[in-house]
Amino acid sequence: MIPDSLTQAQYDTVYNFFSLVIAAQLFASIFMLVSLTRVLPRYRQAMTVAAVVCGIAAYHYFRIFDSFKAAFVTDAVGGRGDYLQVAGAGFNEGYRYVDWLLTVPLLLLELIAVLALARRVQTSLLARLIPASALMIALGYPGEISGDNGIRGLFGLLSTIPFAYILYVLFVELTRSLDRQPASVRRTISQLRLLLLLTWGVYPIAYLLPMLGLDGADAWVGKQLGYSIADILAKALYGLIIYRIARMKSFADDD
Amino acid sequence: MIPDSLTQAQYDTVYNFFSLVIAAQLFASIFMLVSLTRVLPRYRQAMTVAAVVCGIAAYHYFRIFDSFKAAFVTDAVGGRGDYLQVAGAGFNEGYRYVDWLLTVPLLLLELIAVLALARRVQTSLLARLIPASALMIALGYPGEISGDNGIRGLFGLLSTIPFAYILYVLFVELTRSLDRQPASVRRTISQLRLLLLLTWGVYPIAYLLPMLGLDGADAWVGKQLGYSIADILAKALYGLIIYRIARMKSFADDD
Amino acid sequence: MIPDSLTQAQYDTVYNFFSLVIAAQLFASIFMLVSLTRVLPRYRQAMTVAAVVCGIAAYHYFRIFDSFKAAFVTDAVGGRGDYLQVAGAGFNEGYRYVDWLLTVPLLLLELIAVLALARRVQTSLLARLIPASALMIALGYPGEISGDNGIRGLFGLLSTIPFAYILYVLFVELTRSLDRQPASVRRTISQLRLLLLLTWGVYPIAYLLPMLGLDGADAWVGKQLGYSIADILAKALYGLIIYRIARMKSFADDD
Amino acid sequence: MIPDSLTQAQYDTVYNFFSLVIAAQLFASIFMLVSLTRVLPRYRQAMTVAAVVCGIAAYHYFRIFDSFKAAFVTDAVGGRGDYLQVAGAGFNEGYRYVDWLLTVPLLLLELIAVLALARRVQTSLLARLIPASALMIALGYPGEISGDNGIRGLFGLLSTIPFAYILYVLFVELTRSLDRQPASVRRTISQLRLLLLLTWGVYPIAYLLPMLGLDGADAWVGKQLGYSIADILAKALYGLIIYRIARMKSFADDD
Amino acid sequence: MIPDSLTQAQYDTVYNFFSLVIAAQLFASIFMLVSLTRVLPRYRQAMTVAAVVCGIAAYHYFRIFDSFKAAFVTDAVGGRGDYLQVAGAGFNEGYRYVDWLLTVPLLLLELIAVLALARRVQTSLLARLIPASALMIALGYPGEISGDNGIRGLFGLLSTIPFAYILYVLFVELTRSLDRQPASVRRTISQLRLLLLLTWGVYPIAYLLPMLGLDGADAWVGKQLGYSIADILAKALYGLIIYRIARMKSFADDD
Ligand SMILES: CC1=C(/C=C/C(C)=C/C=C/C(C)=C/C=O)C(C)(C)CCC1
Ligand SMILES: CC1=C(/C=C/C(C)=C/C=C/C(C)=C/C=O)C(C)(C)CCC1
Ligand SMILES: CC1=C(/C=C/C(C)=C/C=C/C(C)=C/C=O)C(C)(C)CCC1
Ligand SMILES: CC1=C(/C=C/C(C)=C/C=C/C(C)=C/C=O)C(C)(C)CCC1
Ligand SMILES: CC1=C(/C=C/C(C)=C/C=C/C(C)=C/C=O)C(C)(C)CCC1
Ligand code: NA
Ligand code: NA
Ligand code: NA
Ligand code: NA
Ligand code: NA
Ligand code: NA
Ligand code: NA
Ligand code: NA
Ligand code: NA
Ligand code: NA
Repeated sequence: MIPDSLTQAQYDTVYNFFSLVIAAQLFASIFMLVSLTRVLPRYRQAMTVAAVVCGIAAYHYFRIFDSFKAAFVTDAVGGRGDYLQVAGAGFNEGYRYVDWLLTVPLLLLELIAVLALARRVQTSLLARLIPASALMIALGYPGEISGDNGIRGLFGLLSTIPFAYILYVLFVELTRSLDRQPASVRRTISQLRLLLLLTWGVYPIAYLLPMLGLDGADAWVGKQLGYSIADILAKALYGLIIYRIARMKSFADDD
Repeated sequence: MIPDSLTQAQYDTVYNFFSLVIAAQLFASIFMLVSLTRVLPRYRQAMTVAAVVCGIAAYHYFRIFDSFKAAFVTDAVGGRGDYLQVAGAGFNEGYRYVDWLLTVPLLLLELIAVLALARRVQTSLLARLIPASALMIALGYPGEISGDNGIRGLFGLLSTIPFAYILYVLFVELTRSLDRQPASVRRTISQLRLLLLLTWGVYPIAYLLPMLGLDGADAWVGKQLGYSIADILAKALYGLIIYRIARMKSFADDD
Repeated sequence: MIPDSLTQAQYDTVYNFFSLVIAAQLFASIFMLVSLTRVLPRYRQAMTVAAVVCGIAAYHYFRIFDSFKAAFVTDAVGGRGDYLQVAGAGFNEGYRYVDWLLTVPLLLLELIAVLALARRVQTSLLARLIPASALMIALGYPGEISGDNGIRGLFGLLSTIPFAYILYVLFVELTRSLDRQPASVRRTISQLRLLLLLTWGVYPIAYLLPMLGLDGADAWVGKQLGYSIADILAKALYGLIIYRIARMKSFADDD
Repeated sequence: MIPDSLTQAQYDTVYNFFSLVIAAQLFASIFMLVSLTRVLPRYRQAMTVAAVVCGIAAYHYFRIFDSFKAAFVTDAVGGRGDYLQVAGAGFNEGYRYVDWLLTVPLLLLELIAVLALARRVQTSLLARLIPASALMIALGYPGEISGDNGIRGLFGLLSTIPFAYILYVLFVELTRSLDRQPASVRRTISQLRLLLLLTWGVYPIAYLLPMLGLDGADAWVGKQLGYSIADILAKALYGLIIYRIARMKSFADDD
Repeated sequence: MIPDSLTQAQYDTVYNFFSLVIAAQLFASIFMLVSLTRVLPRYRQAMTVAAVVCGIAAYHYFRIFDSFKAAFVTDAVGGRGDYLQVAGAGFNEGYRYVDWLLTVPLLLLELIAVLALARRVQTSLLARLIPASALMIALGYPGEISGDNGIRGLFGLLSTIPFAYILYVLFVELTRSLDRQPASVRRTISQLRLLLLLTWGVYPIAYLLPMLGLDGADAWVGKQLGYSIADILAKALYGLIIYRIARMKSFADDD
């Protein structure tokens, strides 16, 4: 639940993190678009998707930043006082879920695209991963905006079911269909999956913070930082790693 | 008719959907522009039109979003209360109709362009489809902005006449002129037309909602969501499918 | 003269037309820039000029739109009432004349460029057309911003002299210098000139409206719509036709 | 010194000129960037610099325009009254000097680059021209913002010393180092230098206006128009002429 | 500590410097992106990073400029009076540190990339330089926002430790690993390192200013100008020098 008041330090911290995410996503996106021609055509689809994902995130963080600025105000000189929720506007947690609804399926697409599996296998994987991810996001939202920790917990749990299914598909099913791939490809895939697990795992942890006995404002600030950092790792860093892999494969394939 | 008041849940839902449409159209447009060189030159015209259509929609949804934000206000702390129509500004339904006036003819052009028919047939089809679509939009507008369900029904009906004519041309006349085309081309055309039918059909349904006994605000919210979803399907998704077809044809033609 | 008050219908109509022109010019410009490489290099100069003309118009209509929004206000709930001129700001008709001062010479340049005449003939034509067009715009402005119909008429008349001269140069002199051109080129030129005549002719007609006995607000609204439509035809449509000609010539020249 | 009040005609004139400069610089910059590939690689450096110069000017005129709008206000209906300086904000003449500090060295670089002299000569010329131009701008600023005509005159005089030195280097020294160049190159250089002299000369004349007995507001308006016109000539027109020369040389060199 | 009041001259000076930095970084970034294809592919990575660094800085200076404008206000006519800190908003020093957190690692990457060392050496250098630079920034921030000169001094000292380590790695370790490089490469590296030392050294000096007995406002203004100039030198100028080196190497490598 959105806290009634933030100290200046809490306000400034969230403020600066949101601005950091804008810069990181926007310029990661620009960097990837400018570097597109430096990888072989067969990897450009994945790079373009990665750039689009970061662009979508930059758009949403512009909105999140403005929403946050408008939602909390102070009347202290120099902004050196507590920030209270304003009348007439609220911080909109919805932007994140709209963002994820668009970007999570694209990230899965990006992962599958870079693996270069047979088209039949790709289609079958995506046909299960994408609906599951949409369900995961949709089930998380009612808990996120609820002020009741019971409801938060319930929907968090429901959202974890499709999340677990996604991990199952990526770690169990995908492995099976990779039997005939050379060892080096298998290693890359393992690393990418691991990265995905580590970064995606931050989201449910951030989601849990408001339920852990912490003071409301601290928990909420922690959650915002958690989501912000996870978004940088799962989108910008992930995209740059995809770029690195594509660059290396571009040299290898050229031989 | 625009409702006098929205609950917070209604306000937030419309708000988040409008923001979702902005992101979807804007980045679909950017994605298609960046991917332009990945299809053969002969398909780039259709792709460019698709990207322009999504760009026009993104522009209009920026305006629609701002119009909506300005039109409904609350004085509850954190925005947690009912939203009332403000003095001095109103939600402008006109943006949609201006948008459709520009984009519907372009979508028809896109469809005809991707079919690659003889130039004479193209010209003849467009000479009937484009005026009919302009008439359909123009006749819908007076009903849309009227607070009277009788007027709404009347103009909805009038607008349905050119709509039916468009479907007739696409499903009856076009079929005839395809006799000499190979089976695979006929299948693609059938699929595209079906998609068009399914997505375009959402518009008149959304238009009807305010006439169906529902509470005014619920009906209006439903209509906004209906138009928003239809616009994503008929522009962004449609464009991406055109891209997919163009990609596949690009490989086929290269052989 | 700018009316003191507009009905909601008048306000909304002008509002939606201005927004339509923004979208039309902006995306016509983007479309032409993206399509630049689809015509042979020798036609790109004309296309670039056409795209720049539409871009300049989009810029000015952004300003015109904002000026209009700020200049007329209502205090009716939902904006459903009369709109009065506000204190402290006025609608600036100057944007149009600044726009024309830049774009009319460019349109003439575009026309001459696409004809591909001998360089000496080009220079001689432009040396007369461009100063005449600047004079035409400059003489129209004092009449446009005057509240006195006598002054409006006088400057309208003065402005018509260079306008007539431009038409003379294009229809009499140009014809003479085309004697040695093949028939097909002569036909294209005739069509372009005709289009130019038809679209440019709308401007003086719109200018006349406030002098025709109509109620002040109606006449003013009519004038704004007239200029808006003329600007779409004379810039966006004209540019797209230039593009079409360039495309066709690009195929022909390649043979 | 900034006048306390402007008539509506004065306000509108400055307003429209500033908006004209924005459009002219912005689209000159875009035009040059789009046309970059139409000149041979060896001329692209100069063209890019020209486009950047116009872009920097567009940025600063956006700021100048906003500063002017905020600095002068009226409370007359429709803006039809005198405009007074507002409390809390002032017109910032500093933007121009910041602009010149960046663009004047770049214009000199552009000139030297297009001459294609020996690298040693280039370096030696720039090593004197660039510091002199920075000094010229820096010395002009204190006079520009002073309300005292004595101080204005003094700093104007001091600023004229480096200005005279720049002209000396361009007209005396440069000539000497051109002895061994073919006649045609010498002619081009002469023309470019002449253009530079004519356009740069407008700046000190505009600077002098407030000292010439004119009414304060008239002089100030005249100065703003003078700087605006000079900026269009010295940046946009100058850049387009550089483009024209580069185009012609590109054909010549190709033979 | 942020001063309670600034004179008009102080306010205008900071204001104009911030606007100068925006223009310098934005157009340096654009210039480098446009010139990307003028260097050989192997140098484009470094150029792209340089362009992104300047783009990130332009973004942050837009924010810094707006933050400064909002934080200090006057009620004097024409802005000719003292500027006081406003109620409800403060100047946010955090933008700089967020900027540095992103750009300092990228600048180190840029330096290492342009040296073209063996991949193993690169990785080992970056693995020490990047964490050290992050630590340097993070330790500087608490001192920067503190109003207490003791705390400022303490954190300044702590931050100097990783700074010294960075210099040690660049000047001692890097030198050792260059033994086998040809003399010309060693010279370029020496020059780049020297430039880096000179520009990076400005930051701690600016940081120290508030501790040197100067009046609070003067010291703060000096610090802002110091950081502004250092940012132009360390990002825009540094990037342009990298471009120059890449251009020269591009000619050399082509032989
Ligand atoms: C399991 C779980 C969640 C998972 C969220 C995830 C996994 C989000 C991933 C987002 C990404 C990868 C975005 C980047 O584009 C929620 C919704 C927080 C609710 C609590 C339970
Ligand atoms: C039949 C009918 C209508 C049809 C609208 C349609 C078919 C709109 C299509 C819009 C598209 C495809 C936009 C995307 O670019 C109206 C006007 C709602 C009025 C009621 C009757
Ligand atoms: C004769 C005449 C006029 C002509 C205006 C024209 C012909 C404008 C053309 C504008 C274009 C083509 C703009 C598009 O870029 C005025 C000034 C209204 C004043 C009344 C007399
Ligand atoms: C001699 C002189 C001046 C000269 C200014 C000049 C020559 C400015 C040129 C600006 C350009 C070329 C900008 C375009 O990018 C000042 C400073 C007005 C002060 C009075 C004396
Ligand atoms: C040693 C030291 C500092 C060093 C800062 C540096 C070296 C910043 C470099 C920034 C750059 C290069 C940015 C450009 O992208 C601080 C933090 C001021 C705190 C005081 C001690
Ligand atoms: Na705030
Ligand atoms: Na909310
Ligand atoms: Na609102
Ligand atoms: Na309305
Ligand atoms: Na209004
Ligand atoms: Na006016
Ligand atoms: Na004003
Ligand atoms: Na000032
Ligand atoms: Na201020
Ligand atoms: Na602060």
